Amino acid sequence: MDTNNLVVLSRGRQEHVDAVLDTFFATAKVRAAAMGDQYLTLWKTLESNTTGGKRFRPSMVLAAYEAFGGQNLIVAAHVGAAFELLHTALIVHDDVIDRDFIRRGGLNVQGSYRDLAQTAGIAIPTAEHRGMSVAVIAGDLALFNAFRLLDRCGLENDLRERLTAILDESMFASAAGELLDVDFSLRAEVPSVEEILDMERLKTAVYSFEGPLEAGAVLAGASEGAVAALGEFGRNVGIAYQIVDDILGVFGDSSDTGKSTLGDLREGKRTVLIAHAVRTPEWAAVEPLFGDPDLTEDEAAELRRVLEACGARRYAEALARDFANRGWEHLASKELPDAVRDEFRPFVATVLERVR
Amino acid sequence: MDTNNLVVLSRGRQEHVDAVLDTFFATAKVRAAAMGDQYLTLWKTLESNTTGGKRFRPSMVLAAYEAFGGQNLIVAAHVGAAFELLHTALIVHDDVIDRDFIRRGGLNVQGSYRDLAQTAGIAIPTAEHRGMSVAVIAGDLALFNAFRLLDRCGLENDLRERLTAILDESMFASAAGELLDVDFSLRAEVPSVEEILDMERLKTAVYSFEGPLEAGAVLAGASEGAVAALGEFGRNVGIAYQIVDDILGVFGDSSDTGKSTLGDLREGKRTVLIAHAVRTPEWAAVEPLFGDPDLTEDEAAELRRVLEACGARRYAEALARDFANRGWEHLASKELPDAVRDEFRPFVATVLERVR
Repeated sequence: MDTNNLVVLSRGRQEHVDAVLDTFFATAKVRAAAMGDQYLTLWKTLESNTTGGKRFRPSMVLAAYEAFGGQNLIVAAHVGAAFELLHTALIVHDDVIDRDFIRRGGLNVQGSYRDLAQTAGIAIPTAEHRGMSVAVIAGDLALFNAFRLLDRCGLENDLRERLTAILDESMFASAAGELLDVDFSLRAEVPSVEEILDMERLKTAVYSFEGPLEAGAVLAGASEGAVAALGEFGRNVGIAYQIVDDILGVFGDSSDTGKSTLGDLREGKRTVLIAHAVRTPEWAAVEPLFGDPDLTEDEAAELRRVLEACGARRYAEALARDFANRGWEHLASKELPDAVRDEFRPFVATVLERVR
Repeated sequence: MDTNNLVVLSRGRQEHVDAVLDTFFATAKVRAAAMGDQYLTLWKTLESNTTGGKRFRPSMVLAAYEAFGGQNLIVAAHVGAAFELLHTALIVHDDVIDRDFIRRGGLNVQGSYRDLAQTAGIAIPTAEHRGMSVAVIAGDLALFNAFRLLDRCGLENDLRERLTAILDESMFASAAGELLDVDFSLRAEVPSVEEILDMERLKTAVYSFEGPLEAGAVLAGASEGAVAALGEFGRNVGIAYQIVDDILGVFGDSSDTGKSTLGDLREGKRTVLIAHAVRTPEWAAVEPLFGDPDLTEDEAAELRRVLEACGARRYAEALARDFANRGWEHLASKELPDAVRDEFRPFVATVLERVR
């Protein structure tokens, strides 16, 4: 998910989350230093890989919490920070699986450690494996500490257990989605639209939208019905978001998304657009271009033209609007107070504005 | 750590732990099945990788718990199962880092998934990477569920938090040890004895001995002084254990350890034995043999002869006895009841019996 497309809901909320994470990393670095300089360096690397993001998942937690009248931003920021650390763990391990050494334009954990090893004279394959090994360890540390952050925010037992169950479900779903993604990458045929939506929902939407929104609502003491309605909103708007993200990955302006719109086409990323296109007669003419790592701008323009001509773009845009509208319907639930609708209406609008 | 060398403390205790893990996996499989057949298969693979061990860490938890008069074996079995799942997580990810596809004579998670991919016609490097990708996911699932098992055994807040902090320290130390191990493998020179002891303590002894013993004592309501004394016992006897394990890895009878005593020599495993030997004049003559993957039985015999002649074996044995004795001194603490000494005396004896 490209966080450059995301609405940052409030600067003030982000500062609370940053403070929690700063304290967490400060404590971890003191503990790590007692176990050696290398371990301290690993924690510093993990910390720098956790900063610089838009804190999207924490802002979902805090927006829901405040919309339901929650007042204790410090506790809510701990819950938000737990989702942020989960996000760090998942992307660090996702990069191991995808053998990516760059994230947000800079070196990720395994990129940093690969380069350190290379500088020390170690050959590329060994240096890359060293980077990946350290990234496995770093992701593990972020993962178990996501759960630890919930332990330590002083919540009474029932509430802590409910929030931990939501974080658990987010992680559990994300692992299922990552597994589907690994399987898809090995298949010759492009998965169906339904399979891709299912994978994107499990891998990203649950832990980025549904889980954080539910957690914020539960923490603020919302009713079961309200929590469920907001969760359904998150699930649907999250899927809409992923579809829009995939459309922008091909048709977006790279100054807007912060990444080249050639990337997804060169990589051969299997999105809803492609799942639709491959099942139309127009695709055969451009099929060899898709996934070509040396794709030129002209060839990319030709691929985009076919994705429009075969109706794939229109189809994906309609699908995104459909999921956003389903989300909107859940937001209209009478279980939800107006403050919640007021909070999230601009967010849905942002998602819809990004498709024509 | 070779669990074939370990004392299984009681069959009855193991059954309680197995029951907790059976219930945990049954629930997880129901949840996973709702997210697809592939995910259910992953959970079955993870489960089969969790069974078959000797439940060493749970037996440490339960032995300490009962020695301090603990009566609720069901709760203690949950704490033991949490350490067992942590162990599973650590070995699954350790195998990713070491690119090992076999564990305990059978296929591990990544071995199973590599072979499935190969059978489906996927070439070796891609099939291996697929296996490693799935193993990253599987280890993550085991890791966060280790923490979840502690959440769900119904403990009151303070006690749960103390036990979670012990599990946290075990994981935190193990990550530090794994990082040292990764660094050692890239260094040209053999690390010092102190460095190797530090790595083995962090990577294995803390989460296998110190942590489980402390957890069992805390759960039984032992005093701070008693918990600390038993923890120190565990730390020292754990280091002794690791040294004995390394000695047996070279000099042991393979019918006893369940693995070829050629393995460590062929792999070039850097142990206390080797750290001592490389700093003696005798080593130069056999140095080229060490780490040769095609080492013959005769060459291995020559390596063993030099490890004896240069004093490395004697040195390692004395070191193991020294750590076992330090452990013993902590066990003699007047903070500890006689029942604890009675429980663990045979265990220390077993460690010492294994060196001449």
